Amino acid sequence: MKKFTAPELKSVLLKDSVMAPRQKNCYAATIPQCIKQTIDTGRIQAFALNWKEGMPNRPHIFWDSDVAKVLEGMAYALALNPDPALEKIYDEWVDLICSAQQPDGYLNVYFTVVKPEERFKHLSYAHELYCAGHLIEAAVAGYQALGKTKLLDCLCRYADYLCSVFGFEEGKRRGWPGHEEIELALAKLYRLTKKEEYRKLLQYFINDRGTEPNYYEEVEKDPAPRKYAQADVPVREQTAGTGHAVRQIYLCCGMADLAEIDQDESLLAVCERLHDHIVSKQMYLTGGIGSYFFQEKFSVDYDLSNGGLMYAESCAAMGFALFAIRMFNITGNTKYLDTVERCIYNGILSGISLDGNKFFYTNYLEVDENLKPSVVSKERQPWFNCSCCPTSFSRFLPQLGKFIYSVNDEENEITLNIPVSNHATLNLNSKNVKIDIEGNYPYDGKIIIKIVSESEFSLKCRIPGWCRKWNAKLNGEAITNLHIVRQWNAGDVLELNLDMPAEWIYANPRVTTNTGRIAIMRGPVVYALEEIDQTGPVRELILDTKEPLEVIQNHCDLPEGTPVIKGKAVRETFAGEELYHTNPPEYTETEFYAVPYALWQNRGATNMAVWIRRK
Amino acid sequence: MKKFTAPELKSVLLKDSVMAPRQKNCYAATIPQCIKQTIDTGRIQAFALNWKEGMPNRPHIFWDSDVAKVLEGMAYALALNPDPALEKIYDEWVDLICSAQQPDGYLNVYFTVVKPEERFKHLSYAHELYCAGHLIEAAVAGYQALGKTKLLDCLCRYADYLCSVFGFEEGKRRGWPGHEEIELALAKLYRLTKKEEYRKLLQYFINDRGTEPNYYEEVEKDPAPRKYAQADVPVREQTAGTGHAVRQIYLCCGMADLAEIDQDESLLAVCERLHDHIVSKQMYLTGGIGSYFFQEKFSVDYDLSNGGLMYAESCAAMGFALFAIRMFNITGNTKYLDTVERCIYNGILSGISLDGNKFFYTNYLEVDENLKPSVVSKERQPWFNCSCCPTSFSRFLPQLGKFIYSVNDEENEITLNIPVSNHATLNLNSKNVKIDIEGNYPYDGKIIIKIVSESEFSLKCRIPGWCRKWNAKLNGEAITNLHIVRQWNAGDVLELNLDMPAEWIYANPRVTTNTGRIAIMRGPVVYALEEIDQTGPVRELILDTKEPLEVIQNHCDLPEGTPVIKGKAVRETFAGEELYHTNPPEYTETEFYAVPYALWQNRGATNMAVWIRRK
Repeated sequence: MKKFTAPELKSVLLKDSVMAPRQKNCYAATIPQCIKQTIDTGRIQAFALNWKEGMPNRPHIFWDSDVAKVLEGMAYALALNPDPALEKIYDEWVDLICSAQQPDGYLNVYFTVVKPEERFKHLSYAHELYCAGHLIEAAVAGYQALGKTKLLDCLCRYADYLCSVFGFEEGKRRGWPGHEEIELALAKLYRLTKKEEYRKLLQYFINDRGTEPNYYEEVEKDPAPRKYAQADVPVREQTAGTGHAVRQIYLCCGMADLAEIDQDESLLAVCERLHDHIVSKQMYLTGGIGSYFFQEKFSVDYDLSNGGLMYAESCAAMGFALFAIRMFNITGNTKYLDTVERCIYNGILSGISLDGNKFFYTNYLEVDENLKPSVVSKERQPWFNCSCCPTSFSRFLPQLGKFIYSVNDEENEITLNIPVSNHATLNLNSKNVKIDIEGNYPYDGKIIIKIVSESEFSLKCRIPGWCRKWNAKLNGEAITNLHIVRQWNAGDVLELNLDMPAEWIYANPRVTTNTGRIAIMRGPVVYALEEIDQTGPVRELILDTKEPLEVIQNHCDLPEGTPVIKGKAVRETFAGEELYHTNPPEYTETEFYAVPYALWQNRGATNMAVWIRRK
Repeated sequence: MKKFTAPELKSVLLKDSVMAPRQKNCYAATIPQCIKQTIDTGRIQAFALNWKEGMPNRPHIFWDSDVAKVLEGMAYALALNPDPALEKIYDEWVDLICSAQQPDGYLNVYFTVVKPEERFKHLSYAHELYCAGHLIEAAVAGYQALGKTKLLDCLCRYADYLCSVFGFEEGKRRGWPGHEEIELALAKLYRLTKKEEYRKLLQYFINDRGTEPNYYEEVEKDPAPRKYAQADVPVREQTAGTGHAVRQIYLCCGMADLAEIDQDESLLAVCERLHDHIVSKQMYLTGGIGSYFFQEKFSVDYDLSNGGLMYAESCAAMGFALFAIRMFNITGNTKYLDTVERCIYNGILSGISLDGNKFFYTNYLEVDENLKPSVVSKERQPWFNCSCCPTSFSRFLPQLGKFIYSVNDEENEITLNIPVSNHATLNLNSKNVKIDIEGNYPYDGKIIIKIVSESEFSLKCRIPGWCRKWNAKLNGEAITNLHIVRQWNAGDVLELNLDMPAEWIYANPRVTTNTGRIAIMRGPVVYALEEIDQTGPVRELILDTKEPLEVIQNHCDLPEGTPVIKGKAVRETFAGEELYHTNPPEYTETEFYAVPYALWQNRGATNMAVWIRRK
């Protein structure tokens, strides 16, 4: 087990036309906007602990996590893109947060100033350990990205306090976080500090969860979180995505981390089973998960409705990518990279506007003015009362480089996971391996991989799951094995050609919402039909799957070089406006244009669908 | 205005194969079961007013209405089907209910024993005036059907008390029922007693509703009921079904009643506008209304999803029929009878099992094990915590005869609204007109109308909206006008042949949930495909609309004579179990069998759909 690690943050500089601009706009817009909102809403000032009942900006149970996630994003941004003004804010925030720590190490605004008598009494819904987890992640990020220790020291004290409260050991109490997150945070802290207590607490949170007597029922007298919070059965008996999707997927991250830390094959098998079940029965084509809008939950298998009361939270897609990259790094199985790629290029990047300052909470696959209104907006918003998604983007986008490669010192191996254009300086067994990749992936299958520095190592290039035909040349000579072990010379060139036709995608017929419908993908990119590109309503179109799909460029006001897919369709119309009638439809031939789903609603609000009726 | 009245309850004896057996089972099963549940759950005993906090069976805000509705059903059942044992229960219940009346006339269990200090303080959600309305309906029914006065006297005292509390007059308070019902009840009481105060209170409840300052905001400090309870604008400005569907449609009944009582053309125009809007944009093919499961509400226009999180409450369909028959009787416009018929034969009768003892709350148009789970059961249940639907059936089914004819003394006219087999003795201008109808409507279009008694009157036979071809013979001679004014002789025979082909029905393309789908109707009956009748999953079928539909008999274990529709289809299947893939489907020819929607799930739980994919 544990084959690979992600490269260090600064070692991969993106140059591609999809990820790199998103990252740039994260620094330029997403993070500044999150900082502004964090200040304006009182979230950061709350750490001054001077709020009193009756004052405005009453602290909320999850506010600490928003601050922590922005802080984590700031740390990555500062590492990749130094900015003294931002660093000043960063340091001030850290000072303020640390000042809120209680003498015993406890650190939580809500349960210090609003409900001080209720510390650790409402783990099911009060997000207390969730906030702790995000603060720990921020602290680890600050240390790893910037070498700063103040927040880390503070959070270690908090973690020490948590270790004194919870656990299997005599004298400690039971308690399961209602929103998982502390687990993966403890894993990060353990890996950094090697402090055994953190591993023990992580083991406790994973292994006690879902056992009988059930903590939620026994202590909090509430059976509802059993399923909602993945505590209905012990985690090792779980077989499918259950309950709140973000909780489930953060738990999976923590389980994968513990499996690696403890070299626990049985726990890893549970992670694989959950991944495979979600991917084969509970995931949107876009990598979105948690299709049931009610309580942001997983639904029954194959229930993946596209519009109205669907869900598919941006945070859940990001969490799924973070889980899947962990699983690849532990196992080396590229099926997990297919999940990573599906999520990033579709269900994650759809959640944020191209300019980086507006966000979807729910990533609809269909929007039509006649579909049931949802509880969440169908247009991207600058912020939300429950603003987990914007702050998740602020910390996720700067980390994109960590998905591109994985490194295995033991095998002296580097894997190229997602072959985007980038310049990398990877630390492999304490040597720097410099690689430069050119190309226009994911919009083009031709990839030029240049080895810039001399070194002996094994390079493994992933052939994506969607790719059925490819060829490669090493220094001009055809090769058929992409696991290349050799002494690389500066100037070596590996050329990879992934056949990337636009393809018709069918859904399993059990997904009744997609009965008679078809989607389009090209490479890892899911396409969507926006009404502004069509000759009339999207809902009237029937795509002709017998006709070829044509890839065209610069069709519309999208980023330069974005391929648009053109095809033939018929438009079905009816005479009259009756609700129900017996008049057969009329058909007219037309064309349709599809754009990458992740880019939809960047040219105004318009009807859109991913799954369209087919001939 | 006010052209017609419904016939008296006992004047129409049903003999047909659809309504008559349902009515019989209502006496044999529905009412006994509602009585048992009303006793077992403590609903009736609550009127003894001896409940104290801490005791079981804590009275609920809407319990009185359940008791009242069962009592109303018992009155009708006793009139049509005398039963001394049932009458004993009836009288005991009336005694107990009357014993609960307070000295000032007030009568409500919850606000007497549970929250006595909160009388009339929570009109928005506390169902207090709703319960009053149902008790009044029960009292009027007891008097009209059985000649009993005790409950009527009691409820008149309560109504007098209500008149002293609410109204426009100086010294009275404002207040709008959150769940309308008191309005139509006051209309019934006014028509019976001619007491002017009841009309004034009815006028108050209708005309004050939705005016500014808004009562809910001003007094109850809650803006939420504005839309939910049809109080966002004055009722005369309403243009579409809004908020909770049953509330909306009961309000419509009250508005129609007041329009007739006051001969108020402008109010009648509002009723027509609401009816037409609902019928043309908010109604399921089955007559179901209120498609949004969240809070049982109307959704946006054309949002009529078929499964999962849809709604279409049985009570709402019954309410819609009760509103539509009022509108026909006031206007004589047969479009309202099309609504009545659509509701009764589809969205109402679907709500109750053939044997009369199990009920749907939500009437799904599609059930598949892979569709999003609903908050309400997809199998009929014997009772519910919120058990409005079973008790609604107990009072609705015995009244079916009142929909069949309407009588107009002024014009000396009888209309035949729904030409089912029946024997009627109609009071027209104080003379008895006896009519006997033979046939198998709605399953056959041939109807034999025999005049049994001599009389001069006008007979008007409705040609249903769904019927495009018909012919008629009077005593063997073809006629083309079905408004027949003549001296009828005993033995006169009018033969009516309504062409009743099985037809393909399309939905307006704005109903995106039905894109590419088709339904089947024959006459007023909507058909559905149950999986047990097919060669495989319903979700795999594509119906061939180019092939003829065949009507067959006795295909399956449904009531004798139920026509089943057979047609050609292809079955679309895919190799493999992948969630998303590029393998084109395979097609095999097959047949399909459709059964009347109202009869589905009487042969076990099975997947079902009304709207099926079409070729």
